[in-house]
Amino acid sequence: MNSCSTPSPLCYYLLMTATTTNAAVSAAEHKESVERKDGPDRKEPTYTFTEKQVSEKSEIARRFLDTRTRLNGNVEKANNFLVKRFYNIDHNSYLEGALPAKTKELMGLVASAVLRCDDCIFYHTIQAYRLGVTRAEQEESLNVALVVGGSIVVPHLRRVYELLQELYG
Amino acid sequence: MNSCSTPSPLCYYLLMTATTTNAAVSAAEHKESVERKDGPDRKEPTYTFTEKQVSEKSEIARRFLDTRTRLNGNVEKANNFLVKRFYNIDHNSYLEGALPAKTKELMGLVASAVLRCDDCIFYHTIQAYRLGVTRAEQEESLNVALVVGGSIVVPHLRRVYELLQELYG
Amino acid sequence: MNSCSTPSPLCYYLLMTATTTNAAVSAAEHKESVERKDGPDRKEPTYTFTEKQVSEKSEIARRFLDTRTRLNGNVEKANNFLVKRFYNIDHNSYLEGALPAKTKELMGLVASAVLRCDDCIFYHTIQAYRLGVTRAEQEESLNVALVVGGSIVVPHLRRVYELLQELYG
Amino acid sequence: MNSCSTPSPLCYYLLMTATTTNAAVSAAEHKESVERKDGPDRKEPTYTFTEKQVSEKSEIARRFLDTRTRLNGNVEKANNFLVKRFYNIDHNSYLEGALPAKTKELMGLVASAVLRCDDCIFYHTIQAYRLGVTRAEQEESLNVALVVGGSIVVPHLRRVYELLQELYG
Amino acid sequence: MNSCSTPSPLCYYLLMTATTTNAAVSAAEHKESVERKDGPDRKEPTYTFTEKQVSEKSEIARRFLDTRTRLNGNVEKANNFLVKRFYNIDHNSYLEGALPAKTKELMGLVASAVLRCDDCIFYHTIQAYRLGVTRAEQEESLNVALVVGGSIVVPHLRRVYELLQELYG
Amino acid sequence: MNSCSTPSPLCYYLLMTATTTNAAVSAAEHKESVERKDGPDRKEPTYTFTEKQVSEKSEIARRFLDTRTRLNGNVEKANNFLVKRFYNIDHNSYLEGALPAKTKELMGLVASAVLRCDDCIFYHTIQAYRLGVTRAEQEESLNVALVVGGSIVVPHLRRVYELLQELYG
Repeated sequence: MNSCSTPSPLCYYLLMTATTTNAAVSAAEHKESVERKDGPDRKEPTYTFTEKQVSEKSEIARRFLDTRTRLNGNVEKANNFLVKRFYNIDHNSYLEGALPAKTKELMGLVASAVLRCDDCIFYHTIQAYRLGVTRAEQEESLNVALVVGGSIVVPHLRRVYELLQELYG
Repeated sequence: MNSCSTPSPLCYYLLMTATTTNAAVSAAEHKESVERKDGPDRKEPTYTFTEKQVSEKSEIARRFLDTRTRLNGNVEKANNFLVKRFYNIDHNSYLEGALPAKTKELMGLVASAVLRCDDCIFYHTIQAYRLGVTRAEQEESLNVALVVGGSIVVPHLRRVYELLQELYG
Repeated sequence: MNSCSTPSPLCYYLLMTATTTNAAVSAAEHKESVERKDGPDRKEPTYTFTEKQVSEKSEIARRFLDTRTRLNGNVEKANNFLVKRFYNIDHNSYLEGALPAKTKELMGLVASAVLRCDDCIFYHTIQAYRLGVTRAEQEESLNVALVVGGSIVVPHLRRVYELLQELYG
Repeated sequence: MNSCSTPSPLCYYLLMTATTTNAAVSAAEHKESVERKDGPDRKEPTYTFTEKQVSEKSEIARRFLDTRTRLNGNVEKANNFLVKRFYNIDHNSYLEGALPAKTKELMGLVASAVLRCDDCIFYHTIQAYRLGVTRAEQEESLNVALVVGGSIVVPHLRRVYELLQELYG
Repeated sequence: MNSCSTPSPLCYYLLMTATTTNAAVSAAEHKESVERKDGPDRKEPTYTFTEKQVSEKSEIARRFLDTRTRLNGNVEKANNFLVKRFYNIDHNSYLEGALPAKTKELMGLVASAVLRCDDCIFYHTIQAYRLGVTRAEQEESLNVALVVGGSIVVPHLRRVYELLQELYG
Repeated sequence: MNSCSTPSPLCYYLLMTATTTNAAVSAAEHKESVERKDGPDRKEPTYTFTEKQVSEKSEIARRFLDTRTRLNGNVEKANNFLVKRFYNIDHNSYLEGALPAKTKELMGLVASAVLRCDDCIFYHTIQAYRLGVTRAEQEESLNVALVVGGSIVVPHLRRVYELLQELYG
């Protein structure tokens, strides 16, 4: 789950670190490789909607995002080094790159659905919505998850369809 | 999860499709195979109890079934072709066939328990109850799931034992 | 996985322990409960075929059973107390009881298929075969697993269909 | 796993059925819905490479595809109605639609990687390659799977990188 | 999940059975093996805090423990032989032995986190806390789970960090 | 899986990056937090045995380590930025810290066993052996995994007991 879409202190830190770290790593890597992938070329996607706009549109999204923000506060306060590095790498996985950010958010959605994690499903559905993904694209992604993951995915499908209904009306 | 035990519009549609489709398929298959299994011989099981009777007996079952019906409404409204086909095939998997429907509902229960999906566990426990399965049979099925799936299944076991208590008194 | 179908030293021990333990437990339980389930009533199922007969019929089964026996030798030699108790409880889960042994072997098959464990799938398919389960019953059990577990089950399905072909010709 | 890329008898049958069934379903659906998604609009993708060309390029791919074809033969021969319907719906999930076929093959790859199924990973990597997906796109998809699924995905990553090496040189 | 930390009737029974059973088993085993591991040497750990003290310190822990106790009541009342044996073996797995109880509770935590079972995570976090495990040790265990299990573990991490906050302040 | 125990070019790079990155991060973090955990205090564990010594002792270990090294070569050559960062964080998770490296390797073993990944199980068993963990400690860790993960873990248990036999004789 991309964990840094809100401008919270932790995320500010992570983004700053990301930059700083990339700089340091770039120097170290320079001699070794020129054709490096995924490194300097990655960049933040442009969102069509803010989290706030999503929260105003969907009560389910609002409750989810509020709880997530509140709980992330504890994680932030704990200031655990490895957790922060993991959040950082997680954040980097969904940036614009060889594949568009929206494709990768939908991949995150499919992965979350087959692993049956409601929070993760909600998160990626919201992220995809914020990036301008259509409802038909969301449903088709969920269809891949349904066929790969089987009927055990159905209860999660039912719940995310309620979110889709609120987001896309 | 067998998804068509209620006579909702979607289920009506699915059953109708099942028939229509079977007809079309039968024609196509005729030259190719005579010894076809699972096809025309499958038939709807006979339920001892309706969902309504189950809901009156158990508050847990009532809440679960109500939520499920409400959420299925969204899925139905979305009218997604592949979802409907999946629901159809899912429905067909639990019909009377080479194995009795009640055995297959208990298999669905075991699969749901080792995959640790509370909604799915509740659904198959209720379906098995509706088909006249005894409490001892339900518990023995859950024992197979417990041994195969390990102690990670225990929290789900605890929750379904509460449902068993309400259903079987 | 029922782990004691062969009369190896470990299994002999386990069966003996099962009896001894049951006796001890029975005494302890007597005051507390009369309606005890699954306890004294469980009994060994009657097999139609021995493992040797299965091995002669199917090369896949033979290789699987030989490897399993050889590796169980190491576990046996290690003589780990908790492993032995786990094997014992595992063995007890598939005895004749409220449900017939063959139904429970097929449940073990479904659970193994949705959890995608080839060894476990092969084991329960062989056990079910030894108990006289038909091919149609095996296939229908696998269908429940396929629908619950999704296309990720397909590679395992392909492999077990090869075994079914050898066993049922 | 999309199961019908080869023109085997089973696949021929499935494609034919798909058409036939769609026709039947279309009629049934007509009154009910106009805005139906995923139905008539889905179409077969255009492959840049045949399976044969892939097999000639990569020894790993060749062995995988040969085994898969051989084992699918057993499944085909068994002619199980529900298995065929499942294969059909699986096939339909990866057709061109609201999302391009190549995006959905990469989603299948991500789902297979987080569920850790080597056969499925190999299959979708090959399918994506056949559709003209670049190595950088394959690696980025695998990165999403690695971050979502964790280090338990690493052994599978190692194996698929060997396949990538053979395919993309 | 170690299932017998409270002195409920079921647990009393289980502990008694454990003793009785061990005695019976010891006799049976005597001829066979002297170097037996994990058997007689296992003993109950010494807790720094009672469950009651934990409940007074953390509202999250209190709600979890109360629900768990209430639901275990149903399981106890059902008096299922195999469930009781499973609870017994589960209980024995976390006793002092070759590894300290607190190490094994943290292993239970890691296993629960990668399998993504909130109840199990809460249980082992509480047990580890009761045994005097520090917050840094809990966090480092969770880091292993995060890296092995991937970002799908993050929502569970967020929830257990809230519990850690209440327990360690 | 800790992925940097061999002094391969990739690992050299990763360790170098780790240092560089830590320096950059330390600077960034300095104002924000003093009580940082897991950061500067982590250090490489001291191994009792080299991988070479393990390979000479156990044929199973040798084959596993050789394949792993060969396949890591492809990953290294691909030089994917996010994969390298993931390997780095993975490596950092098993260093000496609040918990001893050997405890964390055993946690990695338990996590790998309940997630049923043979390669990962072999890797952590070997790492634990290299750090001086006894066979009884390995077996007790596996017992936690067996009880948490259930009988589906048994086939993996059988395979790792063969490795234990070769390593501990």
